[in-house]
Amino acid sequence: MIEIERKYKVKNTNFLNALSHSFKIAQGYLNTHPERTVRIRTRDDKAYITIKGKSNEKGTSRLEWEKEINPEEAQQLLMLCEDFIIEKTRYIVPYRGHTFEIDVFSGLNEGLIIAEIELSHEDEIFEKPEWLGEEVTGDVKYYNAYLSNHPYNNWN
Amino acid sequence: MIEIERKYKVKNTNFLNALSHSFKIAQGYLNTHPERTVRIRTRDDKAYITIKGKSNEKGTSRLEWEKEINPEEAQQLLMLCEDFIIEKTRYIVPYRGHTFEIDVFSGLNEGLIIAEIELSHEDEIFEKPEWLGEEVTGDVKYYNAYLSNHPYNNWN
Repeated sequence: MIEIERKYKVKNTNFLNALSHSFKIAQGYLNTHPERTVRIRTRDDKAYITIKGKSNEKGTSRLEWEKEINPEEAQQLLMLCEDFIIEKTRYIVPYRGHTFEIDVFSGLNEGLIIAEIELSHEDEIFEKPEWLGEEVTGDVKYYNAYLSNHPYNNWN
Repeated sequence: MIEIERKYKVKNTNFLNALSHSFKIAQGYLNTHPERTVRIRTRDDKAYITIKGKSNEKGTSRLEWEKEINPEEAQQLLMLCEDFIIEKTRYIVPYRGHTFEIDVFSGLNEGLIIAEIELSHEDEIFEKPEWLGEEVTGDVKYYNAYLSNHPYNNWN
């Protein structure tokens, strides 16, 4: 139940193509409190409820609990959620023995592209692809919970 | 998914006895926002996550979604919850064709006893037992979400 990951901005999407494995994601939050977020997500034709605890100081590790739920019920729960629903396409990109998840946001967060890599321990070393930009691990502005209340297109 | 119920204080517990069907309940809230509460509950050796929407104006009807979860995971999720965990014993009491759920609170809410009756429509008529006290349907002070932040023993 403990998730260790690092998060980066992405410089361009030239490395993505129609063959990249991808999902359509929509998600909202019943709670965006940093100590206990509750997320409803649809991913293609499936749906999930996910609860995350507070991050450790580095922002790399936090309690995560997830359960699959009925997709029609998820639509009703999404209507209860706070503020804005986040829409994005997630690409699964293997790179030199690790896997990156690339989130290309649309709707009110259009223009934002974020890569996450899940690690087996906090100090694990991995090779950085050239499209990987600035690290934003632990920066709450890039939490999806934050984006659901403060969409990227309203930042400026 | 829509729940219709009325809620009352209870004058005494003389009508309860060792033969009454009962459960031990512990519950906490990941979110007590009135538009979208998220509750983690253990009931004897089972556990549930429950999401409730906003009540209608009369306080009798609201969206409710519930799913059974793993009891050990529930213990970890209870540790993420806001403020205080609510403890109570729930008695199931049939009375003249209807069923009352009687919550006898313990811990920080000791002294509070509440009866709830679930109805099939808002204006359904039912016979009131003599132990039924003042109606508190729709009074947010008696919501368990409120009690988890403001326990009964701190009211005076």
